[in-house]
Amino acid sequence: MRYGIIGTGAIGGYYGSKLAYSGQEVHFLFHKDYEFVKENGLQVDSCDGSFHLDHVNAYASTADMPPCDVILVGLKTINNHLLPEILPPLLHDHSVVVLIQNGIGVEADVQQMFPNTALVAGLAFICSAKTEPGRVNHQCYGSINLGNYSCKDEWLFNVILNDFTNAGVKAASVPYDEARWKKAVWNMPFNGMTVALNTRTDLLLKNPSTRQLIRDLMMEVVEASRALGISGVDEAFVEKMIQMTDEMTPYSPSMKLDFDFHRPMEIDYLYTRPIEIARAAGFRMAKLEMLEAELRFLQG
Amino acid sequence: MRYGIIGTGAIGGYYGSKLAYSGQEVHFLFHKDYEFVKENGLQVDSCDGSFHLDHVNAYASTADMPPCDVILVGLKTINNHLLPEILPPLLHDHSVVVLIQNGIGVEADVQQMFPNTALVAGLAFICSAKTEPGRVNHQCYGSINLGNYSCKDEWLFNVILNDFTNAGVKAASVPYDEARWKKAVWNMPFNGMTVALNTRTDLLLKNPSTRQLIRDLMMEVVEASRALGISGVDEAFVEKMIQMTDEMTPYSPSMKLDFDFHRPMEIDYLYTRPIEIARAAGFRMAKLEMLEAELRFLQG
Repeated sequence: MRYGIIGTGAIGGYYGSKLAYSGQEVHFLFHKDYEFVKENGLQVDSCDGSFHLDHVNAYASTADMPPCDVILVGLKTINNHLLPEILPPLLHDHSVVVLIQNGIGVEADVQQMFPNTALVAGLAFICSAKTEPGRVNHQCYGSINLGNYSCKDEWLFNVILNDFTNAGVKAASVPYDEARWKKAVWNMPFNGMTVALNTRTDLLLKNPSTRQLIRDLMMEVVEASRALGISGVDEAFVEKMIQMTDEMTPYSPSMKLDFDFHRPMEIDYLYTRPIEIARAAGFRMAKLEMLEAELRFLQG
Repeated sequence: MRYGIIGTGAIGGYYGSKLAYSGQEVHFLFHKDYEFVKENGLQVDSCDGSFHLDHVNAYASTADMPPCDVILVGLKTINNHLLPEILPPLLHDHSVVVLIQNGIGVEADVQQMFPNTALVAGLAFICSAKTEPGRVNHQCYGSINLGNYSCKDEWLFNVILNDFTNAGVKAASVPYDEARWKKAVWNMPFNGMTVALNTRTDLLLKNPSTRQLIRDLMMEVVEASRALGISGVDEAFVEKMIQMTDEMTPYSPSMKLDFDFHRPMEIDYLYTRPIEIARAAGFRMAKLEMLEAELRFLQG
């Protein structure tokens, strides 16, 4: 199996390096640090054991990359409009594209761009950051759930799961819709609220008013998924997410990092699309609509 | 008629001074600038013509003040818990207390403190500020609407209206509930949102996302007043408020000033009480609940 990594940042860099370190053939697309990695390789500082890849198949352009069997896309969704230009050189007739991206509606849009390509949602549960050129800092967690969106080759889907497992990455198959909406239960409240109130996850839960608000926002995601007929996203899961966050070390979600570093925020797939999808199914996520508007204002 | 002014700030200071300048007997309670006013009088810089009161009936404590026929309360509502202590010396059997204060539920609470006192709601439409000791800066507008809450003496109520009119203050009688909720249509969205997004009224309306949000928040107030059976608060009024704000010079609502100057915000009467009252009537102001939670967080 030949792997291609589009977007070798905190996420793509971590999972791609783990696969390469386990012996898989992995080809990485780099942006700013191509020259550095070509010369120095790739360093992963990890809570699970650090390691260094001396020789990396590094590229500055996908035009130079070979066709791959599995392509992990670790781009921010705000760059997905680039996919029609950069993805095709990596695709062959049976390629599987794993979108390790945030939000709801990503697969539907990418499928429109590539109607015949097998798509899989990658839901990463990981705290990692790319702190400097050629260096990924993996702080904690690290599992990945794969939700099959349109991959008809079950054997191939399972090979990917196995490859992750063999690389020391906890990987599991999950129901696509349920998994995306479950992730939204945490993502929609905490990404936006840490930006809107310029704060941290722990402080939002410490204040009784915002603790209740976080719960209300999570329940809007639950109600939306119910309106969509998606099972498994319920109040018990909300309690679990709040408890998990209570036990987490204070954490800046990706949107907060984007905002703090003056990068564009992923408002479209984290808010606008799920809000529209829920509304079309008859449920208005009233408070999340408000959060979306606040984020659009702050983005401006 | 003898007038007493409790809270000689931007609001009480303006209306009290206008009444005094027109020849009414007015007794003013001062806090920090008692000594200054005692010596130098009171200056009103006004868009309608500035004036100076050389001799002011100034007091540092209500214990020294005479009973008054009409008492204008210009305190922030966060100080209303002080009323049982400071108001009694000014009351006689037929006194009318005009609460020129923000929010919903103020009269109900003050009536509980003073079950036999006639209460009137004073709804001030004014831009003014107390910029330094003994000086009120009246920038624009200046009318006052009086909503009769529990004053059974209609003659007396009309005398107050006349006294304002004779003092050059545009004054009108309005239906109590309708007036309080109409004021909330503007107050609830703009007071909180300028704080939550640290911005101005004009910028909130310039951004298409927050312009829609402001409209949604206003509509929540309209729906709440409908649930309460209060007429006259409708979508046309929302349009009027948005148009009025479009035409206003950028303006910092009182809550924004309180926040900027690290004073406590009037969250209770501007948000918590109307939200509770609407919920008891079966309507949830979902987005305003969220705004309330954000303000509580920022207050903390």
